[in-house]
Amino acid sequence: MSVFFFFSNRADIALIGLAVMGQNLVLNMNDHGFVVCAYNRTTEKVDQFLANEAKGTKVIGAHSLEEMVSKLKKPRRVMLLVKAGQAVDDFVAKLVPLLEKGDIIIDGGNSEYQDTQRRTKELKQKGLLYVGSGVSGGEDGARYGPSLMPGGNPDAWPSIKNIFQSISAKVDSEPCCDWVGEDGAGHFVKMVHNGIEYGDMQLICEAYHLMKSALGISPDEMSKVFEEWNKGELDSFLIEITKDILKFKDKDGSFLVEKIRDSAGQKGTGKWTAIAALDYGVPVTLIGESVFSRCLSSLKDERKHASTVLKGPAETKYKGDKKQPFMPPKLSHMPKASCFSERRPNCMAGTSITAVLPLCGGEDVSFEGGKMHLRTACWTRFGHEMLV
Amino acid sequence: MSVFFFFSNRADIALIGLAVMGQNLVLNMNDHGFVVCAYNRTTEKVDQFLANEAKGTKVIGAHSLEEMVSKLKKPRRVMLLVKAGQAVDDFVAKLVPLLEKGDIIIDGGNSEYQDTQRRTKELKQKGLLYVGSGVSGGEDGARYGPSLMPGGNPDAWPSIKNIFQSISAKVDSEPCCDWVGEDGAGHFVKMVHNGIEYGDMQLICEAYHLMKSALGISPDEMSKVFEEWNKGELDSFLIEITKDILKFKDKDGSFLVEKIRDSAGQKGTGKWTAIAALDYGVPVTLIGESVFSRCLSSLKDERKHASTVLKGPAETKYKGDKKQPFMPPKLSHMPKASCFSERRPNCMAGTSITAVLPLCGGEDVSFEGGKMHLRTACWTRFGHEMLV
Repeated sequence: MSVFFFFSNRADIALIGLAVMGQNLVLNMNDHGFVVCAYNRTTEKVDQFLANEAKGTKVIGAHSLEEMVSKLKKPRRVMLLVKAGQAVDDFVAKLVPLLEKGDIIIDGGNSEYQDTQRRTKELKQKGLLYVGSGVSGGEDGARYGPSLMPGGNPDAWPSIKNIFQSISAKVDSEPCCDWVGEDGAGHFVKMVHNGIEYGDMQLICEAYHLMKSALGISPDEMSKVFEEWNKGELDSFLIEITKDILKFKDKDGSFLVEKIRDSAGQKGTGKWTAIAALDYGVPVTLIGESVFSRCLSSLKDERKHASTVLKGPAETKYKGDKKQPFMPPKLSHMPKASCFSERRPNCMAGTSITAVLPLCGGEDVSFEGGKMHLRTACWTRFGHEMLV
Repeated sequence: MSVFFFFSNRADIALIGLAVMGQNLVLNMNDHGFVVCAYNRTTEKVDQFLANEAKGTKVIGAHSLEEMVSKLKKPRRVMLLVKAGQAVDDFVAKLVPLLEKGDIIIDGGNSEYQDTQRRTKELKQKGLLYVGSGVSGGEDGARYGPSLMPGGNPDAWPSIKNIFQSISAKVDSEPCCDWVGEDGAGHFVKMVHNGIEYGDMQLICEAYHLMKSALGISPDEMSKVFEEWNKGELDSFLIEITKDILKFKDKDGSFLVEKIRDSAGQKGTGKWTAIAALDYGVPVTLIGESVFSRCLSSLKDERKHASTVLKGPAETKYKGDKKQPFMPPKLSHMPKASCFSERRPNCMAGTSITAVLPLCGGEDVSFEGGKMHLRTACWTRFGHEMLV
């Protein structure tokens, strides 16, 4: 018991869910001087994590939610990184009786913003502070600096601000994290952020399609175009990996990209963005089209059958200078990834608002229109003014 | 009391909601030999209707739901034509204690199909049979022959089939009405049917835009093009009224169409269709675009501001033979309105499946693809095979 007392009440935050994203967030918090109590439903994973990835760190573990809660400083901060949906509700239900008024539960998964709205409201009635936070940047981001988009009960922000802004990515020493707004605002922005990436990827796919079908150039030549683009205003993660993917060769020396099944899946955030756009009356046509394109791509059997019936349009080949289509003036609608302001300079890792405003507003509406629509879609709804 | 007894138990069906659609359906049922008991929340309307529009018919009235129910043959058939949403739930709640096991409630409004799914389930538990029916064709259709799309509890169909098929429109003596499927199937098909009309109207608007901006022809000349189109495979209600609208002149002799504010509203069914398409993963791009176009059009103030900032694309004027764009080969994606089969020959008034299949599948997918998608979207979901 003396050992237990020695360790009790010393963790700054608990994290539930030790998949790679969760493990990396724990290690990131540890790097920034916070003591984290790690917990996982399958408790063997806690021991494995402490004995391996977290070896030599200040990370402590817990084998029950009761133990985990007993090791936390007050107000208790508990962050969930579990599968969106029922698992979040299940953990919240188990945590509520263990926590006290003023304690904080943070959901760092890709939850639907309506769920976060509901949970924030329900927990407020019980005196608990709920936060739904977008976490962007993938596994590497989680480990070395994610973009964080927290929203929910604003009373929680002063108690989590230091941890969140410490572990987040920095651009010119500004943290890529600020309070987004009440209720589902954090997850709403994360949803739009992911939806925007759907649009980015759709544009890249259409560029590929034009290069292949109209220009008739090889994947190797395409890769060089993307390499050039990545040096200029389009410099970004997606353009960079596209360059690498296009030139990647299979064991037999042929380009691997040509062998990839032309059928895309989706996890939901793009679809939710398009549905929210329809519901709020905001013409986010590019994201709608990108979701529908994925749907169409996934109807592989039907497309194979249709290809035996439909002739398609006449082939269009570009006859002019093949370098001309890649000149900067043609790209004025795709400004490079950079920072955006939301009350003060801020950043979303990977995809930026300035890069995607034209996408939000639909291809024909361009920057000003896109900004206007994004403002309507994301911020005005939550009482925020976007100061881009 | 003797008068009351004389009249009791003699009506074939009751209809609640005496706005124009409701009145016209009552008169249509009366024309086909059915005795209808008319009821309205504001009961003065019942008296006005009996003294005017229904004068000299066999229509009877009721001044309370109790009286209405007492005048019905069993199983009792009660049709609602009230505003979709809360009003339907309110009337259902009032009717339930007045009805007996096996009695039927029919909702003929534009309800969301999820509401109809819920109500069918709830009433089944109470021993009542619920039907949600699409009613298409507007006020004239309701009076002289609507297209009816009933779905819900299939046990209701034998008891309402005769009335529904008698009052519906006919094509080659086939009624434009058949049982669509269980739960929300009727309202789902009506929703898609309306969504398809959004697509039709979007195509007409884009044709207008091309005629105006690229060809530079006058509304009068456009009207002649639509008149020609209406003689061929595009013959339909929407093409016909477009012809009339385009040539309509204001008092000052100028074309009225140019004075109409370029801002469209929407009632919801197009939006619901696009959301259902996203949810079920069916690429119904034209309907999505048509909803987003209405959203964009309604942002009038933002568009005015954007027009001071954005230059827009370079003007494109067609230099060739102005008659060429209107030749039939260009219209092969818009086959004329005709019938469709759903188990047996059938028809939806106003808009037809064959006319809109390409729209459903997205402009690029064409007829076969559209048929495939519509089948997926509407019928497969409800266990129906579409035999077009």
